[in-house]
Amino acid sequence: MSSFSNDFQNNLHDLMCWRRDVRRFRTDPVDEALLAQCLTSFTLAPSVGLSEPWRIIRLESPRARATALENYQTENARALAGYDGEKAALYSTLKLSGMQDAPVQMAVFCDESTAKGAGLGAATMPEMRRYSVVAAITQFWLMTRAHGLGMGWVSILDPLALTRDLNIPECWSLVAYLCIGWPETSSDTPELETSGWEIRRDSLPIETR
Amino acid sequence: MSSFSNDFQNNLHDLMCWRRDVRRFRTDPVDEALLAQCLTSFTLAPSVGLSEPWRIIRLESPRARATALENYQTENARALAGYDGEKAALYSTLKLSGMQDAPVQMAVFCDESTAKGAGLGAATMPEMRRYSVVAAITQFWLMTRAHGLGMGWVSILDPLALTRDLNIPECWSLVAYLCIGWPETSSDTPELETSGWEIRRDSLPIETR
Repeated sequence: MSSFSNDFQNNLHDLMCWRRDVRRFRTDPVDEALLAQCLTSFTLAPSVGLSEPWRIIRLESPRARATALENYQTENARALAGYDGEKAALYSTLKLSGMQDAPVQMAVFCDESTAKGAGLGAATMPEMRRYSVVAAITQFWLMTRAHGLGMGWVSILDPLALTRDLNIPECWSLVAYLCIGWPETSSDTPELETSGWEIRRDSLPIETR
Repeated sequence: MSSFSNDFQNNLHDLMCWRRDVRRFRTDPVDEALLAQCLTSFTLAPSVGLSEPWRIIRLESPRARATALENYQTENARALAGYDGEKAALYSTLKLSGMQDAPVQMAVFCDESTAKGAGLGAATMPEMRRYSVVAAITQFWLMTRAHGLGMGWVSILDPLALTRDLNIPECWSLVAYLCIGWPETSSDTPELETSGWEIRRDSLPIETR
């Protein structure tokens, strides 16, 4: 099968509207079979030279979770200190991670040294390996939402400290820290818009050469 | 609407199977209304701090197209020179871009200096802005394929030279060069697999901490 119906095309558009960065999770568990099914979207992702450089670390132990949470709390306090006045007041009210609630948490790394793909397509732009990992995460994001799950991407972290504290090979770089679970609520409006931090543009910046 | 049917979930899986890096295009044009419809997937993409840092440059003039093609040809020759023996012989047979045929071509940049989002989420990982652009491209990739279009992502380019030659602001960094059009053929197997360059893994590397 390689052609898709109008209904599917419209639903895909709806899915992209509903796919949101989720920070508020219920604490009930996610079925492992459902999670595994969603994770197949990683193996189907495009990757530069077929290098498939994604490496996933699930954080299950209280120690690993505490390390990651402490990293976030430190960096979030530092980020808050970088704002002044009203912006600082607003920032302090934002909930920017679901790390204290999300039942499934994983750190996603890029193996910068993989021999897979023999470097094809990554000579002048080695960042293509990390971009391949991002593409896989994006597919996973859409797939989880299609099954009713929510995902949040936390980036307020010291990536080198987390890599060291989780005992990760040095040639792996942190791309994302993902919180996954059943969302408390569902909305097609970004929380940063609801909270008054920023609004979405209604047009796309395109120029021609 | 925020829940999706089993049929939709299965079709989304199929879409991810069929979404391929396309390098062989028919030369007939792409309807502008269809292209605009697919491009809405950019405006629906997640972005760090709602920074929406994507900037699109469509290459329409023969001069801009020739500049990009020459850049690719130079870097592809250099890449070939980096392989020896059988790998070099195989590399020289690969078609790695559709730049000579694809009716629509666009370079996608990240505005590293955007004030939008006020830096939220990008203090310790400024690469999150580029990752947001990659997420938008991935959504666009899926949406074009859902409409039967093919897309190819060319990364065998000198990004700084292309940025200079297209007269792009210095604070924008090249994330992707995209070729878009009607694919000559359709397959769920990557061309790099068919050609014998690399094979896909059938499992996902996951560890637990």
